[in-house]
Amino acid sequence: MPKISQRGENTPLSPFRKFAPLAERVKAQGKKIYHLNIGQPDILTPPQALQAVRDNPLTVLAYSAAEGEMSYRKKLTGYYRSFGVALRPEHIIITTGASEAIYLGLLSCFNQGDELLSPEPFYANYNGFAHMADLVVRPIPCDIEDGFALPSAADFEQSITPRTKGIFLCNPNNPTGCVYSESTLRELAEVVRRHDLYLFVDEVYREFCYDGQDFFSALRLDDIREHVVVVDSISKRYSACGARVGALVTYNESVLEAVSRYAKLRLSPPAFGQILAEAALDMDGACLDAVKEEYDLRRQTLFNRLRQMPGVTSYLPGGAFYCFARFPIDDADRFCRWLLEEFDHNGATLMLSPGAGFYATPGLGYNEVRMAYVINRADLEAAMDCLERALEEYPGRIPVLEPAFAGFENAPEYSPMAANVFDN
Amino acid sequence: MPKISQRGENTPLSPFRKFAPLAERVKAQGKKIYHLNIGQPDILTPPQALQAVRDNPLTVLAYSAAEGEMSYRKKLTGYYRSFGVALRPEHIIITTGASEAIYLGLLSCFNQGDELLSPEPFYANYNGFAHMADLVVRPIPCDIEDGFALPSAADFEQSITPRTKGIFLCNPNNPTGCVYSESTLRELAEVVRRHDLYLFVDEVYREFCYDGQDFFSALRLDDIREHVVVVDSISKRYSACGARVGALVTYNESVLEAVSRYAKLRLSPPAFGQILAEAALDMDGACLDAVKEEYDLRRQTLFNRLRQMPGVTSYLPGGAFYCFARFPIDDADRFCRWLLEEFDHNGATLMLSPGAGFYATPGLGYNEVRMAYVINRADLEAAMDCLERALEEYPGRIPVLEPAFAGFENAPEYSPMAANVFDN
Repeated sequence: MPKISQRGENTPLSPFRKFAPLAERVKAQGKKIYHLNIGQPDILTPPQALQAVRDNPLTVLAYSAAEGEMSYRKKLTGYYRSFGVALRPEHIIITTGASEAIYLGLLSCFNQGDELLSPEPFYANYNGFAHMADLVVRPIPCDIEDGFALPSAADFEQSITPRTKGIFLCNPNNPTGCVYSESTLRELAEVVRRHDLYLFVDEVYREFCYDGQDFFSALRLDDIREHVVVVDSISKRYSACGARVGALVTYNESVLEAVSRYAKLRLSPPAFGQILAEAALDMDGACLDAVKEEYDLRRQTLFNRLRQMPGVTSYLPGGAFYCFARFPIDDADRFCRWLLEEFDHNGATLMLSPGAGFYATPGLGYNEVRMAYVINRADLEAAMDCLERALEEYPGRIPVLEPAFAGFENAPEYSPMAANVFDN
Repeated sequence: MPKISQRGENTPLSPFRKFAPLAERVKAQGKKIYHLNIGQPDILTPPQALQAVRDNPLTVLAYSAAEGEMSYRKKLTGYYRSFGVALRPEHIIITTGASEAIYLGLLSCFNQGDELLSPEPFYANYNGFAHMADLVVRPIPCDIEDGFALPSAADFEQSITPRTKGIFLCNPNNPTGCVYSESTLRELAEVVRRHDLYLFVDEVYREFCYDGQDFFSALRLDDIREHVVVVDSISKRYSACGARVGALVTYNESVLEAVSRYAKLRLSPPAFGQILAEAALDMDGACLDAVKEEYDLRRQTLFNRLRQMPGVTSYLPGGAFYCFARFPIDDADRFCRWLLEEFDHNGATLMLSPGAGFYATPGLGYNEVRMAYVINRADLEAAMDCLERALEEYPGRIPVLEPAFAGFENAPEYSPMAANVFDN
């Protein structure tokens, strides 16, 4: 029997999917699971967008153009204009989710063995896609104590080697929720320019910046226009993860050409997803504002509960719908498995993503988890009831000597919100 | 400005897509184009399958399981049973089209630098995906004179080197239309077993075997059960190319596990496509028979016209909906471009895929083309009118000394059909 490939054997297992088979078994036994492990929101997909799919007049479900339907690409330029980015439709290649945009972008820009810098913790699958493309992710460690703020431009510059060809960011950040400001990005752009790097920015959460923070797209960094590759998706914006419609956006014509070659190889992005995506663009901006408000309330709910749990370190995340937390436990992997296999509270438990999978540095994140606040507030409260109880009962808990919750106090930019959020 | 990657620069440009931008410009000028260049059928997608998408009750368009919806995988086992293949749902991983099945399969089974043997000409994108996965395709040349019959098992065996790890077939074959019989596959299986290779078989055209030939799935090769990886798709079977739903099927548990890791990375195949695919399985088999009959008539139409064109070499293809032909021209690439840019016949022209892109051996296929008989018979006749005229007018034509059409006479297995097809 032939062996599987070494790369197939070593592919990092997605930390938010690794316990999925176990969870299925547990659910089959009747236990309720609150899913905070994966960014699958319970928010309704815009009904008018779903309706466009129902109303489709297709008789032959044909391939679209490899780079996506031109009508959709044209319409997207209007969406980008709404946050200050002027594009031609040709600057946008429609992909099968952000996943494909990341992967084809990496293949197009980097050679085997090239290195990327990424603030850590990072979206675990960046590591997976880098592995598929034979690249190396060099992590720049961030600190939970300051809400995982982006390390300084100097920190990035110090980590550059002759093999470093790019920087990969997610803004707003999955898994930390940190939002990178215009000035932060401009400082980093200077490093990008100086060392002739690519700057990849995954902006799929751009609609979800809280506390009045402005979102600043990397596509507005005019000085490094040809260096920037933006990854996009409708999955989170419109709660349409199953559509599998994303995009790669860049002003760099050579990158567009290379990505287009790869896109032609796989023929076409999904037809129905593109119908849905195009219809979603007709929506009133007020709908997205309402979604953002709902996430904001969930964010506050989560934060408010976490800060009351002894020994938990966390912070008020500024964007996206994720939060990282450090627990007083021996090992988050073990804890997450125990939550599913052993624990229940009123017939329910919760599912989390173990933190280590979001780090490239061995040993980091072992007692941390990512939580996605993608379930309604009542369920989120119930999930936090479970978590609170679980942290008391877990056999591998570490004795808590003093309150460890640190992020809130140490993150002054969040202080103005404190009164609004927690005093009523 | 950073450079794009070498691999991005060297990605083979899909021969059936390379002239797409030119074709768009030509169409914008009002010229009609008969598309024989790409396997995009005009056959209706099953209305009841499209209706299932219209009737979907979804309110949140969520990710499916990374390996596909279990309900669909279960139902697919019944479909496979219909042609003698017994599977558990876990043996089937749903992918985003056959393209993704090919690519994730290659990554899972082969290491960088490994070699695959494939009869040539082959589906051009195999080369592209092999390039993406850092693999080398070693071609085993076939001959248009015998309808591109599979080379002998000995021919394959002679080409095996220490780096050879697999054989990649397409059965029925795209681009040649050749169908490989059970005995042919069993002989090859012996080589696969002896050298501990993987046998990849792309079976997306399995419904389209003509002249009463039986389709024999590689999944029935019990002696090499763990070696076989089958690639599947609903694109051609149900004329649903835009659904982007394929599958990778294997009994090899290690391969399934590796593919599943990659599948988790990209999160999920498309939701709507899976709804459509599952509904299509409820269809009456008679619908597929009618589609096959229509393709068969088109096949005969095409063959009948080609054999009357002086200097054209071709054959009656036994399966799929493609045919290869050799033209009396200097260069098929130039000819295909000329057809679009310079030629018209009653305001119309046709688009073909230049043959060289289907060969790995430099210099082969330069005067050959692939034709997909995916348009209705009236249009196909009109396209052949164009072709006939074009071969007379093309400035790079080569003088024809004697009729070159050879395939029909030299392919005895087709003779019984001759009377039926051409005498009435």
